[in-house]
Amino acid sequence: MAQKPSIPKGTRDFSPSEVAKRNYIFSTIKQVFETYGFQPIETPSFENSETLMGKYGEEGDRLIFKILNSGDYLNNINSNIFNEYGHINKNLTDTFILISNIIEKIENHYFLYQEDDLGFAERVKCEYFKLNFRYFQELGYNEDYLVMKLIQIFIEDNKGTNSELTSMKLSSYLKEIYEFYLKKITPKITPIISEKALRYDLTVPFARYVVQHQNEIEFPFKRYQMQPVWRADRPQKGRFREFYQCDADVVGSKSLWQEIEFVQLYDAVFSKLNLPGTTIKLNNRKILAGIAEIIGAADKLIDFTVALDKLDKIGADGVAREMLEKGISEEAIEKVKPLFNFHGSNQEKLNQLQILLAESKEGTSGVEDLRFVIDNVEKFGLESAKLLIDVTLARGLNYYTGAIYEVSAPEGVNMGSIGGGGRYDDLTGIFGLNDMSGVGISFGLDRIYLVLEELNLFTDLELPKPKVLFINFGDAEAAFCMKALLELRRNNIKSELYPDSAKLKKQMNYANKREIPFVVMVGSTEIENNTYTLKNMQSGEQEVCGLKELIRITALL
Amino acid sequence: MAQKPSIPKGTRDFSPSEVAKRNYIFSTIKQVFETYGFQPIETPSFENSETLMGKYGEEGDRLIFKILNSGDYLNNINSNIFNEYGHINKNLTDTFILISNIIEKIENHYFLYQEDDLGFAERVKCEYFKLNFRYFQELGYNEDYLVMKLIQIFIEDNKGTNSELTSMKLSSYLKEIYEFYLKKITPKITPIISEKALRYDLTVPFARYVVQHQNEIEFPFKRYQMQPVWRADRPQKGRFREFYQCDADVVGSKSLWQEIEFVQLYDAVFSKLNLPGTTIKLNNRKILAGIAEIIGAADKLIDFTVALDKLDKIGADGVAREMLEKGISEEAIEKVKPLFNFHGSNQEKLNQLQILLAESKEGTSGVEDLRFVIDNVEKFGLESAKLLIDVTLARGLNYYTGAIYEVSAPEGVNMGSIGGGGRYDDLTGIFGLNDMSGVGISFGLDRIYLVLEELNLFTDLELPKPKVLFINFGDAEAAFCMKALLELRRNNIKSELYPDSAKLKKQMNYANKREIPFVVMVGSTEIENNTYTLKNMQSGEQEVCGLKELIRITALL
Repeated sequence: MAQKPSIPKGTRDFSPSEVAKRNYIFSTIKQVFETYGFQPIETPSFENSETLMGKYGEEGDRLIFKILNSGDYLNNINSNIFNEYGHINKNLTDTFILISNIIEKIENHYFLYQEDDLGFAERVKCEYFKLNFRYFQELGYNEDYLVMKLIQIFIEDNKGTNSELTSMKLSSYLKEIYEFYLKKITPKITPIISEKALRYDLTVPFARYVVQHQNEIEFPFKRYQMQPVWRADRPQKGRFREFYQCDADVVGSKSLWQEIEFVQLYDAVFSKLNLPGTTIKLNNRKILAGIAEIIGAADKLIDFTVALDKLDKIGADGVAREMLEKGISEEAIEKVKPLFNFHGSNQEKLNQLQILLAESKEGTSGVEDLRFVIDNVEKFGLESAKLLIDVTLARGLNYYTGAIYEVSAPEGVNMGSIGGGGRYDDLTGIFGLNDMSGVGISFGLDRIYLVLEELNLFTDLELPKPKVLFINFGDAEAAFCMKALLELRRNNIKSELYPDSAKLKKQMNYANKREIPFVVMVGSTEIENNTYTLKNMQSGEQEVCGLKELIRITALL
Repeated sequence: MAQKPSIPKGTRDFSPSEVAKRNYIFSTIKQVFETYGFQPIETPSFENSETLMGKYGEEGDRLIFKILNSGDYLNNINSNIFNEYGHINKNLTDTFILISNIIEKIENHYFLYQEDDLGFAERVKCEYFKLNFRYFQELGYNEDYLVMKLIQIFIEDNKGTNSELTSMKLSSYLKEIYEFYLKKITPKITPIISEKALRYDLTVPFARYVVQHQNEIEFPFKRYQMQPVWRADRPQKGRFREFYQCDADVVGSKSLWQEIEFVQLYDAVFSKLNLPGTTIKLNNRKILAGIAEIIGAADKLIDFTVALDKLDKIGADGVAREMLEKGISEEAIEKVKPLFNFHGSNQEKLNQLQILLAESKEGTSGVEDLRFVIDNVEKFGLESAKLLIDVTLARGLNYYTGAIYEVSAPEGVNMGSIGGGGRYDDLTGIFGLNDMSGVGISFGLDRIYLVLEELNLFTDLELPKPKVLFINFGDAEAAFCMKALLELRRNNIKSELYPDSAKLKKQMNYANKREIPFVVMVGSTEIENNTYTLKNMQSGEQEVCGLKELIRITALL
């Protein structure tokens, strides 16, 4: 039976050229990661549920894809026990079968109804249906009896002629009942029938890895990881249910040199990708804590940064107004007024912050840390990226404790951040290993892909397609070609033989559509002379050459 | 709350050196695939259930990992409908809540019991418990009442002092009841709460891809795919629940040249991996069909090949005896006796087969195909693999229709096949695209890894670890090192700075444990002279050099 093929929403197939472009980004990031001393690890696609659940907040828990226990789990039940306690089990068994049957009846009924839809539904008398339920209610009821009665009513009603409710309403009504039932039962059953879940990010599995393998690891441990993650998010442009993360982290050191190196690493990757004009934005959690201290309300910090972030759009007065509306006092706003005119070089910003946060010990410490990072990055310079202090940067506020990073795509490209990260002081604590400070960054593969595509920066990329196609004029000619083909391949020249001795036009068409640059033609003359006719598909030029020459020319491309 | 970290059974973490070794195999296979004109595609990790179910037989269906629908599915239910039909729903709602409550009570009861285990159980009088059930049975029962009564009994029994059944038995008994219930309910619920499943192999998603994207594809389509697959199989040595497949297939051509090329491709990969002595075994489905014709029993073909495969172990007489036992007639055995002495060169085997199968049209066609492949492979030669006709090779009998391949590890390595494949005439038919012949092969990444490990063939591999460690003697020294570090990294030399100015011994220890070959030390003298002291960790030699020299030396390694 033919099925119309499709893939789940939020997932993607990747064609050969898409895979090649993605691999180009992967391998660029990978090369820089390794040059910076990071080593790859890989973790399983699914983790035990308890490893993931509760680590990403309530919303996160809901977006984790859970995997059903395998058939084995249920099939391996030893039924001997039922023999041993035969008659007892008979009773309980009956109970469970009864419950199962109720479920089955509801299901069958619902599906039966769906299949037959309009014709069936239009003849249902729904008032009668309603009344019957009231009747059952008054009588008191047995759930099994009720469901059976429901089915019976439907069958009876099917013989009727009028209906007040439209069939759509009825269909929807039954669906609701059914889904309400599912909603009731699923949360109860899920933790029992599902003990594994797909990876939601790379950070929690990394923390789990570090704790589990702590005795095999030399600290500080610099690892990178480039693997897919899965989220049951609502799919939209640039957001998928399966996507890759590319993370590099160091655990086991609080060194600010690491924070400097991550700025340089971002710069190195985007420079290698020939993506100019990225901006690496930097902040420090301690500076945010200092600001909270100054405004005297830690719980207003997010409102504060959100409002401040609108400075360019709504101006200083607008920002002040929004802050007031959010309950930040006039006095507090007065104190942080300098941030409303927060422009100039990074050095100037650092000086402003130092004055502003002078009374906050934590804030001052944050400014010192940030200064150390900024000073050293500026001292050695960046290849192509800009470095920018941004005190509104508050991503991951809940877990970052020091540096906070975010990378913006070049101006003019309509894309959110293409990377981000920060320092967390106690990531592995949830798995029982304390005092492990870590700092890490992530690259948004899918967004970087879109940016490079938009800026047409994939042009130099060698696609994984053959350079040479040998035309197939029949088995004798193909056999002659095979000798050359093997030699080309031993010289790592991508090449193929058209498998069938189809019409020349069809074979040339194939070469054209696949944009194969060279075609080799061998007929009886070539076999006699031990030569090959090589055609350049772009210029149309042809030349006759020996095997060595053939390899030389095609290897050059 | 600290959790003891672990990963699901049948899955693996990969350490940096394991990732490097695996990537070495991947990239070797990938390079050869591309040299042979194959192009990469990727498909999502999960497919719609209907794409996968029913494609791998009943056993396969059971081993497919199903993914629960996301929380959204249940949370998005519009509850308005319940307001509209308030009182009706009240009744039905109560019914469902009642069912849910029963389930909950069973659950709570079971878990309650587990938590309190022995101390609780030892005081349960189980005869009394049994009797009570008989009593309920005689009375007739209501399931909710029964479960509540069950809980009540347990609570009462908890006050008792004697028990005939051990607590273990009771625990197990309750578990059985509970699992029996799950077993009843899960298959009903699974298709509704799960609509997606993890990829089980790469062939079915490939077939789905070809049909879905048929208008974007130039046929014949040569694709390769290297992605993980998941199977809920019982884990054992060399068999995992998550593992990689590396497949190359061509669809849209029946050419025997493709079958030749796959032999050469296998040879090229194993030669590049420096794995000598692999054996590429070849058979043809049509030869097997011919043999079935000769012995007059297609349904005995597997018994026949299984028995024949034991020739070396049990001798010709033993094989004949086993065939007789399996119901193959003496007359038939007499006819195929030549296969009992099936030795010699491939050419000799082909001649024997030609005579043996002369009366079978299909068998003769199979011999001709096989001869074409063997002749051409032998004409051009193989680099390191042996080619061997093996008429007992019957893998994938159900779907292969032409060539059948299998690769054995070198003799002396205790490992099953490390690769296999074959031709299938109608793979895409299940998705509605007919007459697409395909032929493909697969590499068993995990097994190849184990073979290379056993034969110690990973020795030349460059591990993704730094070549150079800069010792950190403090911020001034680190800043001086940073200049050199950036230059080394721009020259793609893997290098790192120890992040903290820890004791020298600790830093040297880190370099030793990670087997970093060079260490750079910079103190005040070096800063003054603008030089670097480079130490070769293996020889212990030290030299003082400038930045250019530093790059030259470390780049050489």
